[in-house]
Amino acid sequence: MNEHAPALSTPSLSSTPRLHVAQPLAAGAAVTLEGGQAHYLGSVMRRQPGDWVRLFNGHDGEWAAQVTNVAKRSITLNLGHQSGRQEIVPDLWLCAAPLKKGRIDWLAEKACELGVARLLLVTTQRTVVDKPNLDRLAAHMVEAAEQCGRTSVPDIAAPVSLERLLRDWPSDRALIFADETGGAPLAETKAPAPAAILIGPEGGFTPAERAGIRACPQGVAVSLGPRILRADTAAVAAIAVWQAIQGI
Amino acid sequence: MNEHAPALSTPSLSSTPRLHVAQPLAAGAAVTLEGGQAHYLGSVMRRQPGDWVRLFNGHDGEWAAQVTNVAKRSITLNLGHQSGRQEIVPDLWLCAAPLKKGRIDWLAEKACELGVARLLLVTTQRTVVDKPNLDRLAAHMVEAAEQCGRTSVPDIAAPVSLERLLRDWPSDRALIFADETGGAPLAETKAPAPAAILIGPEGGFTPAERAGIRACPQGVAVSLGPRILRADTAAVAAIAVWQAIQGI
Repeated sequence: MNEHAPALSTPSLSSTPRLHVAQPLAAGAAVTLEGGQAHYLGSVMRRQPGDWVRLFNGHDGEWAAQVTNVAKRSITLNLGHQSGRQEIVPDLWLCAAPLKKGRIDWLAEKACELGVARLLLVTTQRTVVDKPNLDRLAAHMVEAAEQCGRTSVPDIAAPVSLERLLRDWPSDRALIFADETGGAPLAETKAPAPAAILIGPEGGFTPAERAGIRACPQGVAVSLGPRILRADTAAVAAIAVWQAIQGI
Repeated sequence: MNEHAPALSTPSLSSTPRLHVAQPLAAGAAVTLEGGQAHYLGSVMRRQPGDWVRLFNGHDGEWAAQVTNVAKRSITLNLGHQSGRQEIVPDLWLCAAPLKKGRIDWLAEKACELGVARLLLVTTQRTVVDKPNLDRLAAHMVEAAEQCGRTSVPDIAAPVSLERLLRDWPSDRALIFADETGGAPLAETKAPAPAAILIGPEGGFTPAERAGIRACPQGVAVSLGPRILRADTAAVAAIAVWQAIQGI
């Protein structure tokens, strides 16, 4: 029963391994996994020929694949049927200043779970952390997608400076930012997709940066409520509220 | 300037230590801190007589206190003026099944930041973790309150079984729960304070548990959107959306 779509509604109960792969997925295709994924399926999950696995690549939906061969360093599967359609996530970007290791990892995981289309790291004057490890962040997002039954994984873009971000900002995308100096409640803000949520570093934006964001024609200053939130909390709260208001 | 309220709007920039204490706080009162807090202020922050510190106890607002004496194992302060009023948080409880260490710690921190009045741990049939360490969770909430300029810290109650929770549920408090089998979008749900958000364990509620919750007269089944969320993410998203809708 594990390959049936209904199982996806309770992935935490499903005993079928679910993996993100790079290969294209289509009926009848053979997929060979090596390295860590082969070790995971063969040695950790003890998959044998005939066992089922669920695969997704972020583009072709989720597929039920049957193990056909287990070798020492590789495992081969044959794709059966599509067990889940490719999901379409709302066109919402999260533009966030890098945070210290644990918090940015957590934020990447949550951004994937909540269904953000793109994670864009933005360096600001008060950004105090070193260059983030994009591979590690991408791995956290893939793991979140594997565990939560997601078929899409957010893009992750190379860090850009706030100045560059604002200069190149797309004219059709709302730039929602939490302004400590005040703004309309996010719940009352009309900013449908395509949109982005911009969250500053722990130290907040400088007055000059805030003025620059406010000067952006697509800028939408919002308030996230009366309480001060850490940057990571503000990002997750803003994503959740925006999605709830948009109903997506 | 550190003791002025405006500094509270950017606590991450404030250099004034901010501590949660057990003592009652009032103008002119003397407060002596020992142990870890005395070490933190005296040895880590190098506070000297005349330096300012901000203190709060969860009841009396925030007070600017001036160091009067630094001893080897204790530090004494004299309370000046109230630098921040006692905040009133919405009457929202978070009822959550214990999660594994890192995730429940994180959830306690976020519940405090977002402004939950009470964290109530609920054991369910699919709860797989051991008895949570309430002292550790309380410490995480206190730290979050210290760092985010909060003057209130959520109560944390001893774990109860879901059965007991439902049997003793207060008749005037809405019990909002995310029902995997469907419910109205939380953003469209009328459930003002007093209210509570009930989140199950990673494995979800059993059908029998779900039926029990639905049978609770105060039960309000909601949907948190089309995507499957981890329990900790669902809790934070639900709190943020409820507060945004209530405008508090």
